[in-house]
Amino acid sequence: MSVRITDVVARDIRFPTSRSLAGSDAMNPEPDYSAAYVVLETDSPERLEGHGLTFTIGRGNELCVAAIGALRPFVVGRRLADVTADMGAFWDEITGDSQLRWIGPEKGVIHLATAAIVNAAWDLRAKAAGKPLWKLLVDMTPEELVRCVSFRYITDALGPEEALEILRRSAPTRGAREREMRAHGFPAYTTSAGWLGYSDAKLRRLCREGLARGFSHFKMKVGANLDDDIRRAQLLREEIGAHRRLMMDANQVWDVDQAIASMQRLAAFDPWWIEEPTSPDDILGHAAIARAIAPIGVATGEHAHNRVMFKQLFQTGAIRFCQVDGARLGGVNEVLAVLLMAAKFGVPVCPHTGGVGLPEIMQHLSLFDYICVSASLEDRVLEHVDHLHEHFVDPVVIEAGRYMPPGAAGCSVTLRPESLERFEFPFGEAWVRQRQASVMP
Amino acid sequence: MSVRITDVVARDIRFPTSRSLAGSDAMNPEPDYSAAYVVLETDSPERLEGHGLTFTIGRGNELCVAAIGALRPFVVGRRLADVTADMGAFWDEITGDSQLRWIGPEKGVIHLATAAIVNAAWDLRAKAAGKPLWKLLVDMTPEELVRCVSFRYITDALGPEEALEILRRSAPTRGAREREMRAHGFPAYTTSAGWLGYSDAKLRRLCREGLARGFSHFKMKVGANLDDDIRRAQLLREEIGAHRRLMMDANQVWDVDQAIASMQRLAAFDPWWIEEPTSPDDILGHAAIARAIAPIGVATGEHAHNRVMFKQLFQTGAIRFCQVDGARLGGVNEVLAVLLMAAKFGVPVCPHTGGVGLPEIMQHLSLFDYICVSASLEDRVLEHVDHLHEHFVDPVVIEAGRYMPPGAAGCSVTLRPESLERFEFPFGEAWVRQRQASVMP
Repeated sequence: MSVRITDVVARDIRFPTSRSLAGSDAMNPEPDYSAAYVVLETDSPERLEGHGLTFTIGRGNELCVAAIGALRPFVVGRRLADVTADMGAFWDEITGDSQLRWIGPEKGVIHLATAAIVNAAWDLRAKAAGKPLWKLLVDMTPEELVRCVSFRYITDALGPEEALEILRRSAPTRGAREREMRAHGFPAYTTSAGWLGYSDAKLRRLCREGLARGFSHFKMKVGANLDDDIRRAQLLREEIGAHRRLMMDANQVWDVDQAIASMQRLAAFDPWWIEEPTSPDDILGHAAIARAIAPIGVATGEHAHNRVMFKQLFQTGAIRFCQVDGARLGGVNEVLAVLLMAAKFGVPVCPHTGGVGLPEIMQHLSLFDYICVSASLEDRVLEHVDHLHEHFVDPVVIEAGRYMPPGAAGCSVTLRPESLERFEFPFGEAWVRQRQASVMP
Repeated sequence: MSVRITDVVARDIRFPTSRSLAGSDAMNPEPDYSAAYVVLETDSPERLEGHGLTFTIGRGNELCVAAIGALRPFVVGRRLADVTADMGAFWDEITGDSQLRWIGPEKGVIHLATAAIVNAAWDLRAKAAGKPLWKLLVDMTPEELVRCVSFRYITDALGPEEALEILRRSAPTRGAREREMRAHGFPAYTTSAGWLGYSDAKLRRLCREGLARGFSHFKMKVGANLDDDIRRAQLLREEIGAHRRLMMDANQVWDVDQAIASMQRLAAFDPWWIEEPTSPDDILGHAAIARAIAPIGVATGEHAHNRVMFKQLFQTGAIRFCQVDGARLGGVNEVLAVLLMAAKFGVPVCPHTGGVGLPEIMQHLSLFDYICVSASLEDRVLEHVDHLHEHFVDPVVIEAGRYMPPGAAGCSVTLRPESLERFEFPFGEAWVRQRQASVMP
């Protein structure tokens, strides 16, 4: 076990999804799903590597790649055994350089880069242990798990002692839930039917396909035009029926009063939640919206940048669904902090996975959340977006509308070598062709 | 007036301040005061240029420089007349690219870069008009000023109509306050006596110098060690006397309960405010601290990253002093939004200037705030840090503890060409020498 991390290689990988409008919404009309992709190289004889990524939607991905470079000196040369022995200390060191902290702190580009590196370290640890991430976590004791969490700035809501209690409470029954997950998987919902750029006919077709695949929860994008939203909501309700669940996602386009007014109109279609109704920074705004539109629940989290924001979303009762994102937060460690706070405040966790690689990593954390933390499936569904999975070595497996637990070692975010090569920006073949096509008449 | 912006040149400028411990505090023990520095070049016959900067403390400055590069396409080629005719539209476009927005939104590296570019555009406009920034703003009508502000996400607290009312209320008496400022200047306080890395003897000497220079408000750093804080507070009180004001700054090192406990001990020294007692993202935490330690006021803002955060700090009554920072926010436009909200909520604005170039630009905004918005000096003091001014073409002028209004056209952040050359990282002479010195025995 004297294996060392010998290099941190960061690559700018972008998929030209804006051509198909997959991923389009009211705030993000033309996203190119992208990853700032990290490989932690080691000197192990088996060429053990840790792969991790953070997610962006195109321009600016190069800044995350550069930020990974800025964090490189804090990783290269470390002994794998030291990193895995205390992942909490590793996280503190990665996030603790005071000069780099200034340009966050714990937010924006530097925190996205932190996520990629931290997740790569977990991937490395899981691969070294020969386990998928979820199983690695499930096999850790409550004490080991709590040591991975930074409680800085959240002790007024949750301290290590209370976190231990939460984990100990469900520890004796972990085995039964693990068996249940292996047999039946974790419930998923689909976002793929409702992208904003799709035609009505395509929405109908995708709803039918979703029903045939076993989905019972469907999400649609709203917020660009209220009349369109109403027409599309009507259409989705016709397709999925009254008893299945319809969720709406405004991607931050509304001010607080607008959000309330819009949802009062859209309430006719019985939405289960409204996601990102306003600025992700507006904790009080989300709380005001939640009070005004109940029983419709407010959901947010994909842009909630750290555990301090989630703490306040919980403290104010602003969210009824916690959409934690392990590539927006500083990786697995910070997700653990949020899962534990969610359990304390009784808020179900329905992670955000609308991005390349996010379903792959977040399935591990939803499995862990159910088996070791929440011990409940009530109101828990994990988002599924149905594109770009073919680029992964170990893609997600959906059966009858449920995520089946991955079996391969690691975090499941390892991209195929040929995809890395083809989609590297700006000189991969996909981008060279894109430019050639754009200069044709 | 067919002048166009022909290029955006960004430079990585760093001053090796960590050698002297000027700027040291409990969170940032060794800052190298740095600027991601922007020059907007034009094709005007007079070689008109707009200079702007954002502030960092060393590592990571290169990421801000790169982010300025990412924003370059949204600036190059624009007609100066179009930019100056509608600075609000310019701000919306700089912050509105959906792909780049994803890596914030409106926070972290991309928002720091936004500040540098937006401030450079204001510098360009002010230089073109032949006026210092404060005077340019003072000569704008309420309607023109309101058009510069993005009200997105703050309309539940302040809309354009109410903002207009605030500006119109003080418009008729602008002239008297402008004359007052020209004659007497804006009151300052000094941070330079209390850096954490300084010895007790140096603290005493700097207090005496500060008194001799006319300062009546002194700030000290706290938070590394409570016993040291008590000893140093005792020392400062001895030097400045009971009737002058002592402020404390914890630079985010405490959790909420720790902050309350620490300030209950430090209350014996009658601090006027405690600055950054905890995470800058913790609005509810600041509010809880404020309730617990009154009448000591809570101050924060240098890391409050956008107008949405300030809105909530105001809505919760979390801060009694608003420490807005025009290089952390997205430049002058977003500062205007915060000044207007502060006026509505009755919170005095005491800008953060603890960084290179920040005193230079923030003096303009404090002058504008007094003349056109708040119309009051009660509890208003502008921070002064006494180093690195020699590098500016038009450095701040302090007389009898007050900032005297600058007379030169622009925002006052233009660095001397020789300083730019000497401190450019990593190949300027200062850094080459630094590396040579560090390899000597």
